[in-house]
Amino acid sequence: METTLIEACAALERHGMQPRLEGDPSRHIIGVATLEDAGESEISFLANPKYEKLLATTRAAAVVVRPDVTARNGLNLIRVDDPYAAITILIIELHGYRKHSPPPRDAGSPNIAASAKIGANAQIHPGVTIAEDVTIGDNAVIYPGCYIGPRCRIGHNVLLYPNVVLYEDTVLGNRVTVHSNTVIGNDGLGYAPVGGKWIKIPQIGTVEIGDDVEIGSNCSIDRATLGCTRIGSGTKFSNLIAIGHGAQIGPDCLFVAQVGIAGSATVGRHVTMAGQVGVVGHIRIGDNATVGAKAGVTNSVPDGETVLGQPAIPIREMRRQIAYMLRLPDLNRQVKEQEKRIAKLEEQLRNCQRST
Amino acid sequence: METTLIEACAALERHGMQPRLEGDPSRHIIGVATLEDAGESEISFLANPKYEKLLATTRAAAVVVRPDVTARNGLNLIRVDDPYAAITILIIELHGYRKHSPPPRDAGSPNIAASAKIGANAQIHPGVTIAEDVTIGDNAVIYPGCYIGPRCRIGHNVLLYPNVVLYEDTVLGNRVTVHSNTVIGNDGLGYAPVGGKWIKIPQIGTVEIGDDVEIGSNCSIDRATLGCTRIGSGTKFSNLIAIGHGAQIGPDCLFVAQVGIAGSATVGRHVTMAGQVGVVGHIRIGDNATVGAKAGVTNSVPDGETVLGQPAIPIREMRRQIAYMLRLPDLNRQVKEQEKRIAKLEEQLRNCQRST
Amino acid sequence: METTLIEACAALERHGMQPRLEGDPSRHIIGVATLEDAGESEISFLANPKYEKLLATTRAAAVVVRPDVTARNGLNLIRVDDPYAAITILIIELHGYRKHSPPPRDAGSPNIAASAKIGANAQIHPGVTIAEDVTIGDNAVIYPGCYIGPRCRIGHNVLLYPNVVLYEDTVLGNRVTVHSNTVIGNDGLGYAPVGGKWIKIPQIGTVEIGDDVEIGSNCSIDRATLGCTRIGSGTKFSNLIAIGHGAQIGPDCLFVAQVGIAGSATVGRHVTMAGQVGVVGHIRIGDNATVGAKAGVTNSVPDGETVLGQPAIPIREMRRQIAYMLRLPDLNRQVKEQEKRIAKLEEQLRNCQRST
Repeated sequence: METTLIEACAALERHGMQPRLEGDPSRHIIGVATLEDAGESEISFLANPKYEKLLATTRAAAVVVRPDVTARNGLNLIRVDDPYAAITILIIELHGYRKHSPPPRDAGSPNIAASAKIGANAQIHPGVTIAEDVTIGDNAVIYPGCYIGPRCRIGHNVLLYPNVVLYEDTVLGNRVTVHSNTVIGNDGLGYAPVGGKWIKIPQIGTVEIGDDVEIGSNCSIDRATLGCTRIGSGTKFSNLIAIGHGAQIGPDCLFVAQVGIAGSATVGRHVTMAGQVGVVGHIRIGDNATVGAKAGVTNSVPDGETVLGQPAIPIREMRRQIAYMLRLPDLNRQVKEQEKRIAKLEEQLRNCQRST
Repeated sequence: METTLIEACAALERHGMQPRLEGDPSRHIIGVATLEDAGESEISFLANPKYEKLLATTRAAAVVVRPDVTARNGLNLIRVDDPYAAITILIIELHGYRKHSPPPRDAGSPNIAASAKIGANAQIHPGVTIAEDVTIGDNAVIYPGCYIGPRCRIGHNVLLYPNVVLYEDTVLGNRVTVHSNTVIGNDGLGYAPVGGKWIKIPQIGTVEIGDDVEIGSNCSIDRATLGCTRIGSGTKFSNLIAIGHGAQIGPDCLFVAQVGIAGSATVGRHVTMAGQVGVVGHIRIGDNATVGAKAGVTNSVPDGETVLGQPAIPIREMRRQIAYMLRLPDLNRQVKEQEKRIAKLEEQLRNCQRST
Repeated sequence: METTLIEACAALERHGMQPRLEGDPSRHIIGVATLEDAGESEISFLANPKYEKLLATTRAAAVVVRPDVTARNGLNLIRVDDPYAAITILIIELHGYRKHSPPPRDAGSPNIAASAKIGANAQIHPGVTIAEDVTIGDNAVIYPGCYIGPRCRIGHNVLLYPNVVLYEDTVLGNRVTVHSNTVIGNDGLGYAPVGGKWIKIPQIGTVEIGDDVEIGSNCSIDRATLGCTRIGSGTKFSNLIAIGHGAQIGPDCLFVAQVGIAGSATVGRHVTMAGQVGVVGHIRIGDNATVGAKAGVTNSVPDGETVLGQPAIPIREMRRQIAYMLRLPDLNRQVKEQEKRIAKLEEQLRNCQRST
């Protein structure tokens, strides 16, 4: 879509922002790009102060910045309180979300069970398997190589990228997106130890994914042994994430790549997990908690807490612990020096006593 | 399957248990559920004492508990020494393992090489590729999107979920289950450094998986450069596990999600690896060893040892190390106080000497 | 291929090596194997001194060793400065790289858009999807289940193993190999927080992979939000690696399994990342740097540095830190003992003062 800076500001205002335009209101823009890459028809943004020096050299048609940023004369600016949110709106306005071409008409029919119910306007690509008694809502886009097991129930406007696998009885809400090669509903590590061998426990539970969830690529979400593994609505996952059987993940969480949550753990609402975090089973991570990258969480975390480290502890304790670690060389030096002073004192006292 | 509590006890006895039933022997049960979810026709269990309070509120038809658990009047109980093993048996009796519907007759034939030999009663779904000179035993179930490379040899009763990939010459034993999107036999990171570039070493080895192995979803098991990567019989893997080229994993091991084992490492029998463990190459993890979550194992581990931490050390040493860490604030305080006392002693002694 | 030891030495000489043969120049060899597995027609090698004792028992036709290794009489040896590089050459000579059988003629045509341009001698297997406006160079081998999204541009001699997914606009250079179930170009974790919800930012950037890159199985490489995620030419990845949106990875790097690189991180040339490393966003890892297994890199790393730990620090500092940790028991003992000596001094001084 093509637009002008003044129209871009109008779009931001429609989303409740109060942009201030400095420069040429009629300047044309056709897209969004980084400060380094932007050409003269593209708008850019500065959210991280670290990159402020790029304002001097960018060729962008305009830059979305915070109110207090200073820039060279002649650079068109749109000032807003939250440049990151503003550029998000402009990307949506100018580029929109991915369009999905319909599957070819003549490419061989997908393998759909007669008992499956598929909503209006669904785009089911070749090489998709839809097993018996599946229900799929309207406007689904299901790319090649996806497998949807028996009795899965899938909401409206769901998007499954190539090679997604849903095991039987998996439930996806409306507007769920799952990226390629992710597996939902596979059996978890459920075995009973009997005489040194592992006897498989039938995994008869399911997985339920709420509305507006997006799951990255190559994730694995175990079905519950009994009951249900749940991912709350609005939660977003990056790639290569492992969710154990029976875990309960709240709504509006954000999980970075390679997070692992053990079975029967409970994660509250709006929890942020940085990359490569691990959480043991049978504990609770409170609402609005933040878990730092690579943390190993072994105890429940209260609401709103930020934890870090292995085992994870509150961030202020971790900082203190690191400070003590860094003081170790000094501490050793001090003790060594005290050793000498004590020895000297002992000698002096011996002399002193001898002399008296 | 429907049954009664007295019949359930009989089933447990057939498996060598000695259940004691307290309550109504003729009570009907049709399934197993958690204490929270169980309805009045479902049996539940209590294995983790943490959940004991749920006995007060559960609507379950009966609960399998340890001999010493107390519960409210009127709640039917089956007392056994190992409730977890008992409920496993009841899940198997009442629900059984997953049933696999046969592939549709009219969905287009899978892509099977003429030279492939496939056993009786095999269910090969559409969209499966079976390359030349593959051998597959009886009763195999191979779901859509699986790729079985040239010369693979697969035992009886093998189960491959959708999109599993076996590179050429991979060997699977009998009763092996592989979950979706797992890759077995891909090339490992085998390169020779020549003048700052990496020259690929042809990976001419293979992978051999023993009987009764179950591999989770999205795992990657490298073929050996030379020789064989081995997974011993009875071993169970969770999801997103990486096994390096030439690793030798013993029988009856249990690996939790996101474990990584470097090439040429050796893991003994009945080893437990918790989540996100990493093991470097060319070391040995002894039989019956346990490696704690997120541990980074850099040295061989003796039989039966439990290790923890990065680098991993025996758990008792780790506990001591953590205790010393936690003592650091006190230690610093103590040294600071000693500093004052030494200074005071020095001053007193100076005065003392001066006065004498 | 069959050859003799003298011909093997000639091959090494053609690659600029100076082999010294001790033993029977006409001895026939037909393959390469480990010292343990080698039969009497196979050549083996010793690169890791740890395995030197196997020279006593190997049945190999000959062994490639360093100049200074001593072995039993009668064992044919080829002495070279770099046995690992030499055996690589011999594996290539004797076994070569994997051969790819052409797809069956009668297995149903793949789903290729009319607008796709595919080079000469391409082998496109059944069950492959090639979307509109894709360009693929000569001699491509694309295995079943691969999905190549709209407008992807793929160089010559590219090899995609089964179930690889390339999202739209992905660019692969010449001689790129991607192993099974890897996903390139999926959306990264790009959301703007608005009122406690996460609003998806359209991910309008792309991914560019340089020449001679090899990517392992089950990896996920995010497309950039804006601009481009880049993997430099000659770089090699193992399995289960996560690359965040907009990351810039230099040429000739080597990444071991389960590495995770956050969005907008920059990695220089010829960087080695050991297994399970994590790198946060917006930092730079210098050329020729080495990052130890499981390290969590939170600050930029200078060229040539080796870092370790969480947070990662230079290896010499880490060693010092560990030494201080290991000294903690002694330090505690010392302080405790000093406590007694100070108390004794204080008492003596009190007595001394009293007596004077």
